[in-house]
Amino acid sequence: MPFSIENTRQFLVRPGFRLADVKPASTPDVSSEAELAKDVAQHDKEISDLQENLWANARTGVEGTGAVLLVLQGMDTSGKGGLIKRLARVMHPMGLSFHAFGKPTAEEASHDFLWRVRPKLPDPGEIAVFDRSHYEDVLVQKVEGHADEAEIERRYGAIVDFENGIAASGTRIIKVMLHISREFQYANLVERLTDKKKMWKFDRADLVVRSKWGEYMAAYQIALERTSTRTAPWYVIPGDNKEYARMVVKHLLVEQLRELQQPWPRPVDDLETARKHLDAT
Amino acid sequence: MPFSIENTRQFLVRPGFRLADVKPASTPDVSSEAELAKDVAQHDKEISDLQENLWANARTGVEGTGAVLLVLQGMDTSGKGGLIKRLARVMHPMGLSFHAFGKPTAEEASHDFLWRVRPKLPDPGEIAVFDRSHYEDVLVQKVEGHADEAEIERRYGAIVDFENGIAASGTRIIKVMLHISREFQYANLVERLTDKKKMWKFDRADLVVRSKWGEYMAAYQIALERTSTRTAPWYVIPGDNKEYARMVVKHLLVEQLRELQQPWPRPVDDLETARKHLDAT
Repeated sequence: MPFSIENTRQFLVRPGFRLADVKPASTPDVSSEAELAKDVAQHDKEISDLQENLWANARTGVEGTGAVLLVLQGMDTSGKGGLIKRLARVMHPMGLSFHAFGKPTAEEASHDFLWRVRPKLPDPGEIAVFDRSHYEDVLVQKVEGHADEAEIERRYGAIVDFENGIAASGTRIIKVMLHISREFQYANLVERLTDKKKMWKFDRADLVVRSKWGEYMAAYQIALERTSTRTAPWYVIPGDNKEYARMVVKHLLVEQLRELQQPWPRPVDDLETARKHLDAT
Repeated sequence: MPFSIENTRQFLVRPGFRLADVKPASTPDVSSEAELAKDVAQHDKEISDLQENLWANARTGVEGTGAVLLVLQGMDTSGKGGLIKRLARVMHPMGLSFHAFGKPTAEEASHDFLWRVRPKLPDPGEIAVFDRSHYEDVLVQKVEGHADEAEIERRYGAIVDFENGIAASGTRIIKVMLHISREFQYANLVERLTDKKKMWKFDRADLVVRSKWGEYMAAYQIALERTSTRTAPWYVIPGDNKEYARMVVKHLLVEQLRELQQPWPRPVDDLETARKHLDAT
């Protein structure tokens, strides 16, 4: 049986979810590398068409055209950047935006944590992909103690309200944690210290985060529990096999894009007259 | 002989250039479709690597990292959008931006014509692609009489000054006119009226522009003459064969990216110590 939308449901964060139960190196419901490669390619044409359909509707002013927000979280080297690269290859750059949220600037830090996120939300017809997001504010900020527990507690609720508002405006939200193992990260970091083309990505600060792996997993566990909702669900996807994780994310994307699909817009009512006008030029 | 950087020079707008001499349907120095396809693919890996090198240098704060601005102009259906799609497939989306300049909004129109362009210029390490540009202000605005002749005259000089400033700040500028024939545009517009997936792109306003083809060519001729400089040269590329035009643009891009190439940054001075720190986590 080929991998299907139904198969993605096993990664959905539901009540009782335990991060520790997800095996980063597993590739459920895919039996061979060949099958995986086939599936990765399979959706590309469909994603491309569906995205153009979405964009076309927005551009021609069709009322009620939706949007998609894809939030990517994961530890360093979990493959967020590589996934983004693959998504960019499939979709038209107009109507597609990528935003990386790093350490807040002084100005960003002086505002509420959602302040810097709002301007990056997708307009109708657009797909926005967040490389890290407002979730950093309940992950790194919690672990590093940059915000106190009461503030972190407030933020879980603020995030749910924020995302409900986004969903109510017609934007589909997909939240993905690319879940890698500590061993896989080690191998990736060794590669960064070895491959001269990758060395620039090595950052000593990443080692500090790595040394607090358990605390980060605990922070993820709570954040996932508290913010996985019907309108903005979390999916925790095994990440040690990057091709596998990309395939699953493409399935989630296709699902939302299919639901947003509308007839191709037809701004010209009378084709015959339009053709006559064209022929007359 | 494969197509080379040298072959692009025939499209350079030099003193005495006449737009009427460029044959839109020609494909100079390429003898077969197979050769063309091979060349189109050939540069993809190199562009990808060079762009990552540029981005890596900027991200790690290397002084003097450059940027690239690619300006695309051409009549409707000349293939600007398709070219952009191909470029996006090859490059990492971070550090790459696309900006379409349509009819100015009321706010944009209330400012000087360069006002809306400035915020879209690339930062160090970035590649920005303009789908139409400040040149619309000496093309459509001239033909439609939205600005008087004295103002148009002033703008040629203002553009040259503006682009000299951009170049002085370390940004390489490539300006390309995708030059299609009136007959090729006709076939493309018929396709838009026939293919339901393309119908949304049909705009009656395009027919008004088409009916003034000669005036537009005259406006292009003057703009090209007046603004092709050493630091920001124009290339007029035959556009009826879209694959050919894309191939030539990739050559121009590779040329600039090669000149911007720097060693891969190495933020970690002491690899051995870094490795020890990693192993200790």
